[in-house]
Amino acid sequence: MNEISEINISIDMLNTNEEIHAENKDLFDGEGIFVINLMSAPGSGKTSILEKLIPKLKQTLNMAVIEGDLYTTKDAERIEAQGVPVAQINTAGLCYLDGGMVREASLNFDLREINLIIIENVGCLVSPAEFDIGEDIKLCVLSVTEGNDKPLKYPLMFKKSTAIILNKIDLIGFTDFVEDEFYKDIKLINDKAKIFKTSCTKNLGIDELSEWILQEVNKKLR
Amino acid sequence: MNEISEINISIDMLNTNEEIHAENKDLFDGEGIFVINLMSAPGSGKTSILEKLIPKLKQTLNMAVIEGDLYTTKDAERIEAQGVPVAQINTAGLCYLDGGMVREASLNFDLREINLIIIENVGCLVSPAEFDIGEDIKLCVLSVTEGNDKPLKYPLMFKKSTAIILNKIDLIGFTDFVEDEFYKDIKLINDKAKIFKTSCTKNLGIDELSEWILQEVNKKLR
Repeated sequence: MNEISEINISIDMLNTNEEIHAENKDLFDGEGIFVINLMSAPGSGKTSILEKLIPKLKQTLNMAVIEGDLYTTKDAERIEAQGVPVAQINTAGLCYLDGGMVREASLNFDLREINLIIIENVGCLVSPAEFDIGEDIKLCVLSVTEGNDKPLKYPLMFKKSTAIILNKIDLIGFTDFVEDEFYKDIKLINDKAKIFKTSCTKNLGIDELSEWILQEVNKKLR
Repeated sequence: MNEISEINISIDMLNTNEEIHAENKDLFDGEGIFVINLMSAPGSGKTSILEKLIPKLKQTLNMAVIEGDLYTTKDAERIEAQGVPVAQINTAGLCYLDGGMVREASLNFDLREINLIIIENVGCLVSPAEFDIGEDIKLCVLSVTEGNDKPLKYPLMFKKSTAIILNKIDLIGFTDFVEDEFYKDIKLINDKAKIFKTSCTKNLGIDELSEWILQEVNKKLR
């Protein structure tokens, strides 16, 4: 009997994630909240990009951030210092967020007051792309130091992202990253993807990215 | 009945991985083969390190490489150009290798002729560390561009690795990587880990790493 109940749980979990994605979406839509699922490999610069974006976005939006991490609150502390509400999800070793975790984390905010939630997913170029978590759009970060071969090697995340942020662009001259190859591969995988080139240390491309996010939010909320 | 058989499969899979790890280990030990499980996030430089190590290691060892990747053979092609036998595992979306995949891939080699297999795992800082696959030692690569906070954020891989390779050391001046913090955190997680600092573009630290690998191989095989 234990065995039967276990398999029931796993079937429920599969159904549940799709259902919770839809329920989360309904909840966020109902409250007038735009939700971004921000994904990348570890160390591509998700948190640094958020640190640069928040001061710009919070001028016109009431935003909150959900931070996904295996065990620590390191990133959440960096975001909190930017003066926006943060909720931490610790996955205890799982390399992705699911809809249930995001739902629970979002209950830490007064949703009536908020019109943008950015979810910083766990650092992994594979599994996070497999889970819809209630977001309006997925954004994916690749840093030039990771190499231009990554979109073809890890296609799902690049395929499902509305925009791709090519970060650490200031370091490109020290790498063998071939920009033409990158653009060609992205066109193959996802020819509608918008591409932003950024550097957090040199403050490059942040204005363009921030403006575009504002436009996306306004498209939904107007 | 279908439900019961499904849960049996999943229990079998858990048991099987531990069993296959032990069986792989027996097989490789019996043939006098030292096996390295090389792991990191995407883009840390595993393949580039192999390209630098192989010319040195193959002078005295008969080596082969197993390449793990979601879909492509890009890395395997780079290794093949180094003139050593390569077997490709494509995981079709899974972000880790398991013992069964490694066993099957190893059957592509004439194991009696080989005394070193290096397995380049799928690029992911989380799941690969959870699976023992028949290896003697795990090696983990972190590039300085990923940030010094990664060991505490993704502790399992750093905990289980005999040595940690800090790669792209030539770029450290362009990052906010704090070396002292990195050493302090590694000491907390795994105070026995040996640390190598390497740069593939500047050819730094490769001799030391190669020498150490030779010593480890000889410890087992003598």
